[in-house]
Amino acid sequence: MLKLIPDRIEIRSGKQFIVLLNQKTAHILDLHIGDRVKVKNGKKELTAILQISEEGVLDNHIGLYMEAWKELKARRGQRIRISLAEKPLSVKYIKEKLQGKRLTPEEINEIVKDITEDDLSDIELTYFVSGCYVHGLNNPETAALTKSIVKHGSRINFGKRKVVDKHCIGGVPGNRTTMLIIPIVTATGLLMPKTSSRAITSPSGTGDTMEVIANIKNDAKKLKKIAEKVGGFITWGGGVDLAAADDHMIRVRHPLSLDPEGMLLASIMAKKHSVGAKRVLIDIPVGPQVKVKDLRRAKHLKNRFMQIGKMLGMKVKVIFTDGSQPIGDGIGPLLEVQDVMKVLNNDPTAPADLREKAIYMAGLLLEMGGKAISGTGKMKARKILKKGLALEQMNKIIDAQGRKRIPKNAKLIHEIKSEKDGKVVHIDNKIIARLARVAGAPLDAPAGIYLKKKLGEKVKKGEALYEIHSDNEDRMGFAKDMAKQDSGYVVH
Amino acid sequence: MLKLIPDRIEIRSGKQFIVLLNQKTAHILDLHIGDRVKVKNGKKELTAILQISEEGVLDNHIGLYMEAWKELKARRGQRIRISLAEKPLSVKYIKEKLQGKRLTPEEINEIVKDITEDDLSDIELTYFVSGCYVHGLNNPETAALTKSIVKHGSRINFGKRKVVDKHCIGGVPGNRTTMLIIPIVTATGLLMPKTSSRAITSPSGTGDTMEVIANIKNDAKKLKKIAEKVGGFITWGGGVDLAAADDHMIRVRHPLSLDPEGMLLASIMAKKHSVGAKRVLIDIPVGPQVKVKDLRRAKHLKNRFMQIGKMLGMKVKVIFTDGSQPIGDGIGPLLEVQDVMKVLNNDPTAPADLREKAIYMAGLLLEMGGKAISGTGKMKARKILKKGLALEQMNKIIDAQGRKRIPKNAKLIHEIKSEKDGKVVHIDNKIIARLARVAGAPLDAPAGIYLKKKLGEKVKKGEALYEIHSDNEDRMGFAKDMAKQDSGYVVH
Repeated sequence: MLKLIPDRIEIRSGKQFIVLLNQKTAHILDLHIGDRVKVKNGKKELTAILQISEEGVLDNHIGLYMEAWKELKARRGQRIRISLAEKPLSVKYIKEKLQGKRLTPEEINEIVKDITEDDLSDIELTYFVSGCYVHGLNNPETAALTKSIVKHGSRINFGKRKVVDKHCIGGVPGNRTTMLIIPIVTATGLLMPKTSSRAITSPSGTGDTMEVIANIKNDAKKLKKIAEKVGGFITWGGGVDLAAADDHMIRVRHPLSLDPEGMLLASIMAKKHSVGAKRVLIDIPVGPQVKVKDLRRAKHLKNRFMQIGKMLGMKVKVIFTDGSQPIGDGIGPLLEVQDVMKVLNNDPTAPADLREKAIYMAGLLLEMGGKAISGTGKMKARKILKKGLALEQMNKIIDAQGRKRIPKNAKLIHEIKSEKDGKVVHIDNKIIARLARVAGAPLDAPAGIYLKKKLGEKVKKGEALYEIHSDNEDRMGFAKDMAKQDSGYVVH
Repeated sequence: MLKLIPDRIEIRSGKQFIVLLNQKTAHILDLHIGDRVKVKNGKKELTAILQISEEGVLDNHIGLYMEAWKELKARRGQRIRISLAEKPLSVKYIKEKLQGKRLTPEEINEIVKDITEDDLSDIELTYFVSGCYVHGLNNPETAALTKSIVKHGSRINFGKRKVVDKHCIGGVPGNRTTMLIIPIVTATGLLMPKTSSRAITSPSGTGDTMEVIANIKNDAKKLKKIAEKVGGFITWGGGVDLAAADDHMIRVRHPLSLDPEGMLLASIMAKKHSVGAKRVLIDIPVGPQVKVKDLRRAKHLKNRFMQIGKMLGMKVKVIFTDGSQPIGDGIGPLLEVQDVMKVLNNDPTAPADLREKAIYMAGLLLEMGGKAISGTGKMKARKILKKGLALEQMNKIIDAQGRKRIPKNAKLIHEIKSEKDGKVVHIDNKIIARLARVAGAPLDAPAGIYLKKKLGEKVKKGEALYEIHSDNEDRMGFAKDMAKQDSGYVVH
C-alpha cells in the first residue's frame, strides 16, 4: 500500500471528513472522486470522502481538510495510508430501489439512518429520490419511511397525554385556520404542538404569520415546556430538527421541483408522529387553482393517508374543503394576523369563511380527541370562541413563545377597483398570491393584499375589489402594473 | 430587492461561480441551496450557484468566492443585488426524461452542452443518469447523445484520410490485441488513432500496458502530428478530453456502478467518432465470466451497435469472440508487453491465441478499410506480421509517442502447481485477474500472472499451472494464500 505525505488544507469540511489527492495518485490507487476511503495514520483511522483535483496536491501527497487533519493527529513528516472503504449497505438498497424493487422497512431504515448521519453523498441521495419518484413508494414503504425519519430525528414526548394535530395540503392564500384551531382545541386541555412551515412559494406560511406576534424559534426542550404549560404552540419546524432526513431529501428534490408522493406523505406524517400526535386531521383543499385539482386525486390521497395512518397506529381524518378562492380577507403576514385576531375577538367585521372553517375543523378535532361527542364538536368549538376562551388561550401561547410588538400597517395602500357592475365570479389564487409577494410579503410583514370582495358578492363599477399594501414605492408600482394587466378578478 | 454587503471568501470555486448566504438571509430572499442566482454589482452581472451555511457570513452579507469577487469587481462598501436566475432549459428536459419521455436530438444536445460547460449541478446530472438508467435510451437518443458528446468535446480531424478503429467490450484478462492490430493495420497506410482506457477493475488496461514502453499522455495537437507521421498511436483517452461530457456522466455513475446501456454505447461510439473513424470493429467476448454472458445479449448489443452506427454514418462490424479464458500468457502490464513483443518478433514461444485473434481482427479492418479484398484480409495481416513490418511500425509508434525503458521482471516469482494429473477444463478469469491485482498490477508494472497452461492442455501433478510475479513480499504472501484457497484452475 502506498504511503502518502500529508498536507494540511485550511478549509473546514463540515460533518464529513474530506481528503484530497491529485489525479495521478488517485489513478495509481484506483480511487475515484466521491469514493469513501479509509485513511490511517498509525492507529488513528477514519472514513472520508475523496476529492480529486488536477492541482493543489503533489504526487504521493494527500490533502487533509481541517477536521481530518485533527482527527488523524497528522503532522508533517508522517506517512498516511489510504484504501477504498466498503460502501454502506444503503447504497446497495438505493440501487435496488432505482431498479424498481420494493424496499423492506429495515432497508429503508438503513438508508434514512445514513442520510441523517451524512454518510451518503448528494449523488447517492439523488439516486434514492429518483428511485422513489420513478417507481413510487407503496403504503408499507411510506409508513416505514415515516417511522425511520421519526426514529432518526429529534422527538418531543408528552407521555400519555392526548395529542392532536392538523395539516393542510397548501395552495390557498390566507388560509390561517391553524392560529384559530390551536387556541380553541387547547382550551379544552388537549395538546396540540404544531410545527409549521414558512412560506415557500406563497405570500405567507403559518410560521411567517405567527412570527408577526410571537417568537417562533425555540428548541425542542423549550417547546416541550411551552406545550406542557399552555397546551400548544405554533412554531417554525426548521428550528426543531424533527425530521433531519426529510430536510436532506427536500434539498435534493428542490433543483427539479420533484414531489414524489410517498416522500410528501412521509414528510407530513413524520412531523405529526414525532410530537406523538395520534389523532390527525388532514385538510385537502380541492380546486383547479390549488395543489389538488380534482376530487379523484383528493380521494386517492385520502385513501393513502388513512392506510398509512393505520400502519403507524394513528387515527387520521381527511376532509375536502373549498380551494376556489382565498380564505379570510388578508393575504400577507400582518393582514392575516389581523384577520385571526378579529375572529378571536368576536369582531363583527371578522372574515366569516375563516371563522367557520376553523370552527368546523376544531370541532372535528374535539371529537377525535374525545372532548366532544360525535356531532357536537362544532357547537362546542363555537362556544369556546364566543366566550373568549380561545382569545385567552392564544394570549397564553403568545406569551409562552415570546410576545412581539405588532408592526403598523403599510404606509402605501392602493385600491384596485372594479371596471363594471356585476358579481364576482372568479378570483385567481395565483395572481393574488403573486401580487402579495411582489408587494413585499412575507419579508415585509405589513405587505400583502386585503380583499374587499369575495366570490358571489355584488360590486359596482369603481368600487374596490381589493387593496394592495406595501411599504416600498418600487414594489407598489410594480404590483400596480401587474394588477392593471390582470387583476385576478372576473366580474360578470 | 435586498442589497447585500459583499465578503470575499478566500477559496477558489473552479469553473463555476459560487456565492454564500446564511440561512436567514437565504430564507428572506426565498432562495435555496444549489439555486442558480443572478448576482449584480452595478452593471457587472454573473450567474452563480448558491451555497447556504449556518455560519460564515452575517445577515444581509453575501460571501463571494474568489472568481465571483473578481468577476464582479467587488469591493468593500459596495452593495450587491441577488435574485433567482432562470433554470437552464436542460433541467426541464432532464425532468421529462426522468418522467419517461423520449428526448429529441436538440434536447439531448442542450443537456450535453450544459454538462460540458459545467452548468449543471451534480444533483441535476444524477437525475439525468437516473432517467437514462430507468427508462433507457433508444437508438435515436443514443445516436444523438453520441453526436452531442463529440460536438462538445475536442476532436482530431484527419481530413479525407481513411480512419479505422476497434473496441472491445472488456472482461478478458490479457486481451492486448490492440497493440498488435495497430502496427499491422497502420503498416498499410490506414490511420488508426486509438485512445484507450486505463485499468478500472482489471489488472491492466491497454493504456497501462502501453505505458510500460511508451509515453501515453499527449494532447490532441501532439497526437494528430504523431498519427499523421506514423499512422497511429495508442494513448490514454483521459489526457485528450475527447468526450468531456462523458467523463462527467461516468463520474456520477460511479457511486452506484450504474451502466445505462445507451450511455455505454454512446461513450464507445463518441470516442471513435471524435477521431473521425468511419469504420469500426467491435469485439464482444462472450462467456459466463465476462461482461456479456450469453449470445442473446451479444446479439442484442450487435443490433444496437449496427443501427446506431448507421445513424452516425459509420460502418460498424461486430464479432463475437471466446471469453472463456485469458488471451495470451501474461496478465499485468510488463508480462503483457512481453507477450506483444514476442508476437511482433515472430518468436516461436509467442502466445498463439493472442496472435491469431489479432491477425483475425486486423484482417477484418484491412478489408473494411479497403486494403484487402473480402476474404483475404487475414492472409495479408499475417504476411505483414511475418515480414517484420508490424514490428517496424510498432517501433515507429513507440518512438513517436516517446520510448520508455522497460523495467526488469519481478524479483519474486512463485509457481502454482497442479494437484493432480489431467486436463485443464476451467480457468476462472476473475480469480486470475484478482491475483494479478493483489500481486501489484497495474501499479507495479512487473507484477501479474504468467499462465503456463491454457484450456484443454494436459498437465501432470506438480507441474506449474501459472506463476505469480510480484516485487513485494507482503503482496506475494497474500496472493499465495489466495491461490491456495482457490487457484482458479480446474484440472480433470
